[in-house]
Amino acid sequence: MFSTKSSGRYVTLPLGQNYRTAPDGICKMSLEAIRWKDNKLEILDQLLLPASTEFMHVKNVEDGWQVINKMQVRGAPAIAIVGCLSLAAELVNSSYSTCSDLMKAVTEKLQYLVTARPTAVNMRKATDDMITFMSQCHGKGMSTEELKSSIISRCENMLAIDVDTNKKIGDFGAQSILANSDAKQVNVITHCNTGSLATAGYGTALGVIRSLHAQGKLGHAYCTETRPYNQGARLTAFELVYESMPSTLICDNMAASLMKSKEIHAVVVGADRVTCNGDTANKIGTYQATVVAKYHGVPFYVCAPITSIDLCLPSGESIPIEERPHKEMTHVAGVRIAAPGISCWNPAFDVTPAELITGGIVTELGVFKPSEMYEKIKGEAS
Amino acid sequence: MFSTKSSGRYVTLPLGQNYRTAPDGICKMSLEAIRWKDNKLEILDQLLLPASTEFMHVKNVEDGWQVINKMQVRGAPAIAIVGCLSLAAELVNSSYSTCSDLMKAVTEKLQYLVTARPTAVNMRKATDDMITFMSQCHGKGMSTEELKSSIISRCENMLAIDVDTNKKIGDFGAQSILANSDAKQVNVITHCNTGSLATAGYGTALGVIRSLHAQGKLGHAYCTETRPYNQGARLTAFELVYESMPSTLICDNMAASLMKSKEIHAVVVGADRVTCNGDTANKIGTYQATVVAKYHGVPFYVCAPITSIDLCLPSGESIPIEERPHKEMTHVAGVRIAAPGISCWNPAFDVTPAELITGGIVTELGVFKPSEMYEKIKGEAS
Repeated sequence: MFSTKSSGRYVTLPLGQNYRTAPDGICKMSLEAIRWKDNKLEILDQLLLPASTEFMHVKNVEDGWQVINKMQVRGAPAIAIVGCLSLAAELVNSSYSTCSDLMKAVTEKLQYLVTARPTAVNMRKATDDMITFMSQCHGKGMSTEELKSSIISRCENMLAIDVDTNKKIGDFGAQSILANSDAKQVNVITHCNTGSLATAGYGTALGVIRSLHAQGKLGHAYCTETRPYNQGARLTAFELVYESMPSTLICDNMAASLMKSKEIHAVVVGADRVTCNGDTANKIGTYQATVVAKYHGVPFYVCAPITSIDLCLPSGESIPIEERPHKEMTHVAGVRIAAPGISCWNPAFDVTPAELITGGIVTELGVFKPSEMYEKIKGEAS
Repeated sequence: MFSTKSSGRYVTLPLGQNYRTAPDGICKMSLEAIRWKDNKLEILDQLLLPASTEFMHVKNVEDGWQVINKMQVRGAPAIAIVGCLSLAAELVNSSYSTCSDLMKAVTEKLQYLVTARPTAVNMRKATDDMITFMSQCHGKGMSTEELKSSIISRCENMLAIDVDTNKKIGDFGAQSILANSDAKQVNVITHCNTGSLATAGYGTALGVIRSLHAQGKLGHAYCTETRPYNQGARLTAFELVYESMPSTLICDNMAASLMKSKEIHAVVVGADRVTCNGDTANKIGTYQATVVAKYHGVPFYVCAPITSIDLCLPSGESIPIEERPHKEMTHVAGVRIAAPGISCWNPAFDVTPAELITGGIVTELGVFKPSEMYEKIKGEAS
């Protein structure tokens, strides 16, 4: 799907094609949200979905900051990838006289990108990772041009790495859900969008659903609308329909009724940030869904790459929660739906205490109970 | 606010005027949704709110069925009142040669109105009540014209009776919430619309909020959007702003986060049908809100006039739940918001088991625990 200059593992295909039947066995995705080709970055403007599929050219870090801040791209992994690729696009056409100048500029630009949205940790971790990487490269005596090339390659590689990570998450999650059920096929609920549109491809929680479907084990996938930004109705529904998975859209307030009236085997969601103890910041509504799942005895899974786990924070209490403009609630597609003059509360995320994540935290290293996660991954995350 | 020919207790005032300051001490409402004057019925088309306030002329029972079915008027008490007044409007211009013909026609027309929406019980109870009433009148030897006048008057009186009932519900509910809290002012959440737009005026659950506000005891009212029809965002927010009550709109999926982050003293909702054991059918999302309130130890109140209590049903299992068209979820104000091709599940209501109604069922006779309600009201309801 994605053409990465460095690896050559992906092929760019036009939107609308079904890639699952590709014969070469290479990991392919069904939807393309991030295009990187010939040093040019384009992103699918997700604000226009499902009405139209238009790609935007992201020329530099400022463009990158804007598309992240305006949610033209969203999803914790995708934010970091687009941020880093916007840096790569800018670096291609920039020159620096010394490695120090380059490193200083890259650090500042990445730190600026971190400010575009505060809750997801992935961009901050990508920044920390790049700073460490630059320091290592510099220690090897690279020239300024060599260092620049290495930085660009590292950004490019994030695409392939993320897809690979998601495939593992998908398979681990599916395996765990199936192990906990005697059903031939399982019915799952997901919230927000965690698929090809939120990642480099395949998806985290939606990757679990894709894996179940690929194994013939998916009974039905229910996606919530995910108010106020409707990522479920616009994006997840788009992906589910696109791949012909058996699926139904529900309103956020219907999850409890659904669990009472139909057999639901698991709820799977993504994460914007998981802390040491397993507390998880994710799209607003996640906490409510965990309370409801717990009441109905439905296992709840958080699906997160290690890059979404923040071992700098002991618990969820100190995760900054972004509050978004009221207009996201009062208007839909430019049309006012709420009474004029009403105040709004619009936190973009909420924090779920670890004890409500009853299924486990699904990472590319395996599925862990929140209480055991720290010990299992502390060597891998930072 | 409402001019009822028979009682003369209400005055019709233009929309937009604040009636709370009216000096005559007569119960006044702030919003007018049902106008009955000079034998003419007009209803505020709630589908157009908040964008515009337009009244529709309801000339006969067929019009009545249509405005109820299309949700141009909604709310369990309002459905019955508009249904009966549409009958009154038709009867004014009709003549019948015998009482039997009249009674037969009225019965058929009312039974037709019951079919406009299946979940709320009020229209069916109004039908049963009218059949009994006609039989009593007939027994007194009334002429056909006298019987027709009596039927019309009975329909007209529903307006005044409902407002009086709502005032009692409001005061009983407020009293109970305040009795359970040491706070000087209480913060409450409400779901859907149960105010002047859902009743003849004042409202049931919103009547409780109005009563708290009138006593200076309302800290803050939070109203949920109430997807998919946005009755909270469009209608409740409209009423809250209109009366300058301290209030904030939240998405349906934010209630749990709100309860975790701010002190909430009660959740108050209306009811479309309450059964003998206290099980309650109400707007979709109510059941989820009760689960979330229970988890957070927040008392949950169902506010329902006796006319919403159906003592023909032992429990909620047999309440018919209306499923509405998918387009209500996929489109907002004519704009598609969901991905084309996605299936939807769109139950208009859900059923909450009595044990989750922890605050009580608030009626015009008092506040009852679900388990004691039947004994307390069995002489009053049917």
